[in-house]
Amino acid sequence: MLTAHTIKIIQSLDKKKYRQKYNLFLVEGNKIIKELPDSDYQIADLYSADPELLPIETVKKEKILPAELKKISFLQHPKDSVAVCKLPDQAVIKDVDIQIVLDGIQDPGNLGTIIRLADWFGIEQIICSTDTVDVYNPKVIQATMGSFLRVNVCYTDLEEYLSQYSCPILGTDMTGENIYNTDFPKKFSLVFGNEGNGLRPSTEQLITKMITIPRFGNRQSTESLNVSMSAGIILGNIFSTR
Amino acid sequence: MLTAHTIKIIQSLDKKKYRQKYNLFLVEGNKIIKELPDSDYQIADLYSADPELLPIETVKKEKILPAELKKISFLQHPKDSVAVCKLPDQAVIKDVDIQIVLDGIQDPGNLGTIIRLADWFGIEQIICSTDTVDVYNPKVIQATMGSFLRVNVCYTDLEEYLSQYSCPILGTDMTGENIYNTDFPKKFSLVFGNEGNGLRPSTEQLITKMITIPRFGNRQSTESLNVSMSAGIILGNIFSTR
Repeated sequence: MLTAHTIKIIQSLDKKKYRQKYNLFLVEGNKIIKELPDSDYQIADLYSADPELLPIETVKKEKILPAELKKISFLQHPKDSVAVCKLPDQAVIKDVDIQIVLDGIQDPGNLGTIIRLADWFGIEQIICSTDTVDVYNPKVIQATMGSFLRVNVCYTDLEEYLSQYSCPILGTDMTGENIYNTDFPKKFSLVFGNEGNGLRPSTEQLITKMITIPRFGNRQSTESLNVSMSAGIILGNIFSTR
Repeated sequence: MLTAHTIKIIQSLDKKKYRQKYNLFLVEGNKIIKELPDSDYQIADLYSADPELLPIETVKKEKILPAELKKISFLQHPKDSVAVCKLPDQAVIKDVDIQIVLDGIQDPGNLGTIIRLADWFGIEQIICSTDTVDVYNPKVIQATMGSFLRVNVCYTDLEEYLSQYSCPILGTDMTGENIYNTDFPKKFSLVFGNEGNGLRPSTEQLITKMITIPRFGNRQSTESLNVSMSAGIILGNIFSTR
């Protein structure tokens, strides 16, 4: 049986302030939770409506009622289990060949989808501006479908970081070089901007080359592609020749 | 001032049954609504919290209060206006070079995103199984960002239709031919299956060739890409050589 105090703490974990205060974040669903023991993440508490289905022996599992699960889940349709995990130390930037850089991405679904894409294409690192949505936001974690376990997501001052980065910095906009004509170097950063406003000027001025997904359809539409879809199409193109 | 009766009718339009009963569907937001007069769609009623911002002269605009807008909007954060449009006649299948075929897509966001992708790549037609989510679902319309105006979305018995289709039928799964090695013909259908279950057997047996987006990252993950992301990456690759 969950105490009101526990429920209150778990419910607060959708806010970064409380994740940092309690040093905890949430992972939902057996499918992702089962991957935790093989990762660097530590489970603090594990709550499940059906603990038999969760073969994790190293942590105490608490059986809870579906009604309790509903209270502590952030999903519209709660899954089987919720793992409360310890927030890791801040990720340290590594030296990698291809990395994604995010300048002020706000939508948790977009960040989660981009982490999932990075995992699919074997991109080990994503560098985020400090105002990008937090990777430990429960909606981001959920949208990664477990890929957050395999991608190094770091937050830093982008202007400072990119000023010292010595390889090409590719940005994406609506008027850059056609991605299908671009020779992608061995080592580079691929930068995506905010959903509504694109790259901020301080980031834009550090871009080495702008690239664009050409529109084949009706030019009448002023609508662009969503940022995570753009990332998928560009990554798909980069890896087509590797 | 909206009557309770009008509000009730508009609120019912998230269900296909009521869209068909009243022969109406909803379009939200000035950005998309402004594109309606140049399309084949007819606006029945137009409600706006700020009609001055909506330069459509051909239809009577009714100014409503933000609280009324909230009642008739299906968005979490209602936009400026809601257009109640006449449901068009059922779309007729055309003969096109490349078309997308959807076998039981359930998620409105996925259908909307795929329509948006089709528009971007100039694919004029999407053929859907009869159990695919309805294109006039307000969440689908919203996710298309207006692209439903430029793509012919038809519903039909897929088994019957594909049995008589004489060009290559490409399916997507996890074990097919690498998309980067595939020669895409001039004319073909590209089929995507249901989010959880993939293609149903009766569709699968009509596929000419299965294709796959190769995974470059960690093979440990069993997770696949979301169907609309797969569609984006595959279309991006097809159009890279056209």
